[in-house]
Amino acid sequence: MTKKFNFDVTATDGRARTGVISTPRGEIRTPAFMPVGTAATVKAMLPESVRATGADILLGNTYHLMLRPTAERIARLGGLHRFMNWDRPILTDSGGFQVMSLAGLRKLTEEGVTFKSHIDGSRHALTPERSMEIQALLGSDIVMAFDECTPFPSDEATARRSMELSMRWARRSREAFGDRPGHALFGIQQGSVYRDQRQESADKLREIGFDGYAIGGLAVGEGQATMFEVLEYAPAMLPEDRPRYLMGVGKPDDIVGAVERGIDMMDCVLPSRSGRTGQAFTRFGVVNIRNARHQDDPRPLDEHCTCPACRNYSRAYLHHVNRAQEIIASMLLTWHNLHYFQELMQGLRDAIAEGRLAAFVSDFHARRAEGDIEPI
Amino acid sequence: MTKKFNFDVTATDGRARTGVISTPRGEIRTPAFMPVGTAATVKAMLPESVRATGADILLGNTYHLMLRPTAERIARLGGLHRFMNWDRPILTDSGGFQVMSLAGLRKLTEEGVTFKSHIDGSRHALTPERSMEIQALLGSDIVMAFDECTPFPSDEATARRSMELSMRWARRSREAFGDRPGHALFGIQQGSVYRDQRQESADKLREIGFDGYAIGGLAVGEGQATMFEVLEYAPAMLPEDRPRYLMGVGKPDDIVGAVERGIDMMDCVLPSRSGRTGQAFTRFGVVNIRNARHQDDPRPLDEHCTCPACRNYSRAYLHHVNRAQEIIASMLLTWHNLHYFQELMQGLRDAIAEGRLAAFVSDFHARRAEGDIEPI
Repeated sequence: MTKKFNFDVTATDGRARTGVISTPRGEIRTPAFMPVGTAATVKAMLPESVRATGADILLGNTYHLMLRPTAERIARLGGLHRFMNWDRPILTDSGGFQVMSLAGLRKLTEEGVTFKSHIDGSRHALTPERSMEIQALLGSDIVMAFDECTPFPSDEATARRSMELSMRWARRSREAFGDRPGHALFGIQQGSVYRDQRQESADKLREIGFDGYAIGGLAVGEGQATMFEVLEYAPAMLPEDRPRYLMGVGKPDDIVGAVERGIDMMDCVLPSRSGRTGQAFTRFGVVNIRNARHQDDPRPLDEHCTCPACRNYSRAYLHHVNRAQEIIASMLLTWHNLHYFQELMQGLRDAIAEGRLAAFVSDFHARRAEGDIEPI
Repeated sequence: MTKKFNFDVTATDGRARTGVISTPRGEIRTPAFMPVGTAATVKAMLPESVRATGADILLGNTYHLMLRPTAERIARLGGLHRFMNWDRPILTDSGGFQVMSLAGLRKLTEEGVTFKSHIDGSRHALTPERSMEIQALLGSDIVMAFDECTPFPSDEATARRSMELSMRWARRSREAFGDRPGHALFGIQQGSVYRDQRQESADKLREIGFDGYAIGGLAVGEGQATMFEVLEYAPAMLPEDRPRYLMGVGKPDDIVGAVERGIDMMDCVLPSRSGRTGQAFTRFGVVNIRNARHQDDPRPLDEHCTCPACRNYSRAYLHHVNRAQEIIASMLLTWHNLHYFQELMQGLRDAIAEGRLAAFVSDFHARRAEGDIEPI
């Protein structure tokens, strides 16, 4: 295992790439989907089960962890990996996105953001420097620069002010991060839906220099069509030899479209959150297990799926435990969803490696149009 | 594997016994503790994890299952074992106990009990015949006779009326059960705290003839001292060559005291319910993980315990996920508690087999008195 952070693209197919990110804590096969472990747990899953679905890396949330149990406490206890029993790579966000969502509870200045905790109302501050400090205390392998996620929609002047602030914060993040061998710092491109601003942001980030580059300010309500429009040009503005991370994406068809457009990493709460509300992602679309039509159905969710929910249980059972609000319903559906997402990523990686991504994608859409679908 | 239901006592130590109940679905080592899988799931556990703790048999609740998803539906889906993915023995209660607890919502006659569902208010009836039918539809391996759990306290006349009704229902249960090779029917002794009534009840049950015998009407608020008083004489009134099952017990010291007095089987929701509220049972007593004194504690719950919660997590982590109301808190603490209970049973079985139960019991009490205890 390498002691350095490194990214090798091993094959391309159109704009899509497959490769390996190497870190001292293990390899990340790309394109990669990162399950979200907000409060030091991927909800309703043991970490060994998350790993069994094929996940190479988890995402942790700086905002939640800094409030509870606090980054200082996690550091005293040996870091986030040991704390949550996950010894593979962890990427942490900067806290910015969640803090910005605290409408009415936060105040933004050039220095950073002050805000009130959603847990106990206590006052806190996040700056680029403090975000770097927290992510270091957590022991994060991939640290995200502190930025403002530009809301959608924003007019050009607003988007520009926000992007320029994020670029100043990106520089402060880079300086505060310092030199930490084996740990990576990613910059985040902003610029909303404005191509010139995206270019300007990319140029500034390149100039500062990062180990990887995220595309921020998407998956915030603009819709898939608009997101894909931005992804037609935004990834190519970023260095080809570094990972490109699309934050907060997404539904399976978002993921497929993003990979086609050159994205290497993604994260989303969707598979775990949907698992807790009874929505299962399958090759044929979304199954809402709460629907009464499943109550006598002896078939598994997907007879070709090898996850424990599909191997061992009927739709009737999953329907029953969902209706009865049993914890096992969340456990099994989350497992299934994470398994499905990771299987999709493996399918994409294989297709790119073998130069048959177009066929894979057309197959993906055809199966979902075929039947047994309940739209999400 | 035998095709018959059979019980062999392999060793005794004082009044305590150890042995094996053989069923077509596998062996049950006694004394046995049965985790409760009320609604076709042991809450917060996958069945393979329940098995991994050492459980040989689960208990299912007729009342809950008849209402949702219904016994008929479970039968259509291949029975409770297939439905919930547990292929080992299942004991089902008769539904009587839970129905009797529906104060104000149920009506008792010689025929049986009518009641309103706690889920949707719909009207239902349970009789000895219907209880036998439901338990057969579920595919239960050990079926319990339908009885009235005599409330505590009850005066002698009330207890007698209740016991005599239960004995008439026991006969009707026996007749309705019929001849089902490989499946067992257990009678239930009543008589409250009145020795002559316990004897009369035992005599009537023997006369009817059952595959095993339960001691009912205990663990209903009478307290440990009173329960142990009854257990001084009640087990010996029942046939020596059949399993004796103490229903709804209990805390670890209840279990130890019951085994000392000749009990072979027990069940209780305590380890799983306590797991969901943050109480952990250990060799040193109960740990309330919610207590702030655990928030920086890097030690496991019990450093000698081999369950996943103790092998992989600190008290600080368990405290954090409990406070954050994360599902993994229920998963890990339930696993730990079930592991502890099964380890206790294995300790009791080994001690009886080796004729050193008294030393085991005195050790059990000494360790709990020793420290690191928070009383439950």
